[in-house]
Amino acid sequence: MANTKLQSVLDHVDADLENSLERLFAWLRIPSISADPAFAADCRQAARHVADDIASLGVSAELRETAGHPVVMAKTGSAAARPHVLFYGHYDVQPVDPLELWHRPPFEPQRCLHEDGREILVARGAEDDKGQVMTFIEACRAWKSVTGSLPLDVTFLIEGEEEIGSKNFVPFLDANRDELRADYALVCDTSMWNADTPAITTSLRGLLFEEVKITGPSRDLHSGVYGGGARNPIRVLTDILGRLFDDTNRITIPGFYDGVKNLPVDVFRQWKTLNLTPEDFLKPVGLAIPAGEKDRLLIEQISSRPTCDINGIVGGYIGEGSKTIIPSMASAKISFRLVEGQDPAKIRAAFRSFVEARVPGDCRVEFEDHSAAPAIALAWDMKPLAAAKQALSEEWGREAVLIGSGASIPIVADFKDRLGLDSLLVGFGLDDDNIHAPDEKYDLRCFHKGIRSWVRILAALAEMKWFRRRERNAAGAWWPWVSGPDGRRFSSRS
Amino acid sequence: MANTKLQSVLDHVDADLENSLERLFAWLRIPSISADPAFAADCRQAARHVADDIASLGVSAELRETAGHPVVMAKTGSAAARPHVLFYGHYDVQPVDPLELWHRPPFEPQRCLHEDGREILVARGAEDDKGQVMTFIEACRAWKSVTGSLPLDVTFLIEGEEEIGSKNFVPFLDANRDELRADYALVCDTSMWNADTPAITTSLRGLLFEEVKITGPSRDLHSGVYGGGARNPIRVLTDILGRLFDDTNRITIPGFYDGVKNLPVDVFRQWKTLNLTPEDFLKPVGLAIPAGEKDRLLIEQISSRPTCDINGIVGGYIGEGSKTIIPSMASAKISFRLVEGQDPAKIRAAFRSFVEARVPGDCRVEFEDHSAAPAIALAWDMKPLAAAKQALSEEWGREAVLIGSGASIPIVADFKDRLGLDSLLVGFGLDDDNIHAPDEKYDLRCFHKGIRSWVRILAALAEMKWFRRRERNAAGAWWPWVSGPDGRRFSSRS
Repeated sequence: MANTKLQSVLDHVDADLENSLERLFAWLRIPSISADPAFAADCRQAARHVADDIASLGVSAELRETAGHPVVMAKTGSAAARPHVLFYGHYDVQPVDPLELWHRPPFEPQRCLHEDGREILVARGAEDDKGQVMTFIEACRAWKSVTGSLPLDVTFLIEGEEEIGSKNFVPFLDANRDELRADYALVCDTSMWNADTPAITTSLRGLLFEEVKITGPSRDLHSGVYGGGARNPIRVLTDILGRLFDDTNRITIPGFYDGVKNLPVDVFRQWKTLNLTPEDFLKPVGLAIPAGEKDRLLIEQISSRPTCDINGIVGGYIGEGSKTIIPSMASAKISFRLVEGQDPAKIRAAFRSFVEARVPGDCRVEFEDHSAAPAIALAWDMKPLAAAKQALSEEWGREAVLIGSGASIPIVADFKDRLGLDSLLVGFGLDDDNIHAPDEKYDLRCFHKGIRSWVRILAALAEMKWFRRRERNAAGAWWPWVSGPDGRRFSSRS
Repeated sequence: MANTKLQSVLDHVDADLENSLERLFAWLRIPSISADPAFAADCRQAARHVADDIASLGVSAELRETAGHPVVMAKTGSAAARPHVLFYGHYDVQPVDPLELWHRPPFEPQRCLHEDGREILVARGAEDDKGQVMTFIEACRAWKSVTGSLPLDVTFLIEGEEEIGSKNFVPFLDANRDELRADYALVCDTSMWNADTPAITTSLRGLLFEEVKITGPSRDLHSGVYGGGARNPIRVLTDILGRLFDDTNRITIPGFYDGVKNLPVDVFRQWKTLNLTPEDFLKPVGLAIPAGEKDRLLIEQISSRPTCDINGIVGGYIGEGSKTIIPSMASAKISFRLVEGQDPAKIRAAFRSFVEARVPGDCRVEFEDHSAAPAIALAWDMKPLAAAKQALSEEWGREAVLIGSGASIPIVADFKDRLGLDSLLVGFGLDDDNIHAPDEKYDLRCFHKGIRSWVRILAALAEMKWFRRRERNAAGAWWPWVSGPDGRRFSSRS
């Protein structure tokens, strides 16, 4: 592919940026909060909106039903001789509460100036994940506008339940394996190392999310009449949660660290040279002291070590003023970030046993599981990785780094296990994007150069010859699936 | 006073019961929730309503302004030769949440059948305290209707901030000391021993109510990106609250039990014979195991021992589903029931030190005090007590018992300290009245016999000659106040 053609596409991106923003803003205006059933119609509208947007690239796009919010699926015409990537993103967004802490309405996107002068785009979903998804779609649009087609084949797969555990999306993958054939998956839901340094994420922590509800008295009691004699479920809950950590900030659930490995020496050395300090990482969010295991580097605490966080807790009277009750129940939402070697099912069982052992005989405990996904480590020598790294380095004028992410994108494990697809994780988020929080934003520069980055990555992937190495399997299909002895499918590449 | 006259008044109570209920219901329909500023106008309306009701007895009644909700004050014409009681109650009620657990709208009072066949009155405030206050007002109305006047002088003092700590009522007492002269206070805000056994409460636990807010990060954080590295304020809070108790359920705050005495042997023996079992007391609310100090009787745990309860807790995401955040803040409402010998100010300081010592350096803690009242023990040989006990025993056909209450009526300490008034605590609540909880109720029998009880008590108090022992002090006033060396007033009776 001639450099002049690539340059023309990049020029088109620059010239069309205002239109790209308008298209992004139209999507951001739809409050597609997947967690709250009240926004189900908005989720569907957001799905329809992006399907129409993809269709405007000349790609047939459709909404595919699931037991929950629909999946948007679109495929370019299949040319057997071209590489084929599956692009994954999600159109659902996090809830917006506490709403009172937003400085602008979350679904009225605005372009404005950050206090340090950066131009930013502010809205729920501006980064996670609508803004990121649009960097890819707009890159495709630029290719299509300038050259009349995309440089390789693409399956667009945009789901609507990423923020609530993708429970219905995983069965969708199983049910549509044949249609979802591709060479690699591209995922745009991660961050840069910092505002000037692009990154490819090669490991992700897993996520186990549990809700615990303790019920004591059959009704709220007056704490004067019953106080001292009657069990208080908030006390039971806080007592249990208070025992989850020891004085070195290690998690006390028996077996929790079983199978957790230390970093390879060379990775540890590379991370140490990145020199992530509390000043850099914690000060911008008002903190100063690393809160994880005391004998670990801060970068380990947030990237390669398993964690436990209490994400929400509620019980009793939480209105204004005072109310002297012993409540009937109390509950907490608790999540664990898991690393390679930890089995979510085993950790869940160990956590539940830990709680159950500490619940008094006259209280009841109920659990609800919101998600359970293992950590994944991608192969650092995966073939498209070098090409993407080169493309990113050219765009940003600084060498792209390979990083581990503390966050979880559980679907990446499912792509590997169920579709045999390795994923290339490239994203343009920054640590101060306030994702999952009030005032979520996306830097305009990240959006703009993100589009340009994908333009370059698509060109680089299209020029690679790796796809040609696909061979027909014994059944005569192009698809490199074979069945293992347990009937579970895995990829011959894995 | 002739027995025939007393009998006529009691007969009038029986004949007028339906009208008494109508008057109570009209008051219950006013949602006078003092804790929530949105109900300020309703509080004023409830004050106006009861003032008008008292005025209908021929007593001049008025609303007196405070910095908060107004106080209702009414006085019968002062006849120097008659005993004078100050009747205290409150027109404010507790909040109604969780509203979804009510089986009827809380401010649409209904007379209905309890599942065991008892007739009950259901509404917020049905017992606490509108129903109880109306037993006294209706008793006065019966005396007035039959005899044309009350048998003694009464000052009615109905406040509107009892449920939120009486912060503005106490200064009101100070500012109106002269107008509030009386011989004794009557307080109707307590319970019977059981549905057949009337009781006079002679000790009350104090109440210290604190709110604690822990702030960590300056905004909500993504628990994947920051988890492990960033301090989680819910974890800080639950860790601290989890350390408030040891394995024997004793409170671990240093100095908490300083000054706390064991029960006098004779009281301990009497309480032991009452034989309060978990089956009797806890089973009706779905519990089985006494939750207080392991080496104490259940009746001690709820009556004579100090306690700590977490009345409310909230932090992070509490909506449906999951949200992977580390919240910026978490807070809890915590109350202590105090007993004789404990100083609320000292306990507050000890509690705050306990919390502060455990807050990490990069978190902030804020405290809000909602109330601080010491426990009080009334003199078991207080003069009107024997007369009231006799009257109650006659009405209920069973000897009234003298009990300690685990609950707090802080104003009783203020009556003693600021007005020099001893209080006689008589009430007709039952343990299953669901006060401060959904489906609050008052037994119709308690209401009816409560009115009859007050009719008898008023007769008994009017016949006593104790009021004649009042003497003019040095300044020529009837009121038995003297000033102490620190300028603080106390009663010569105390």
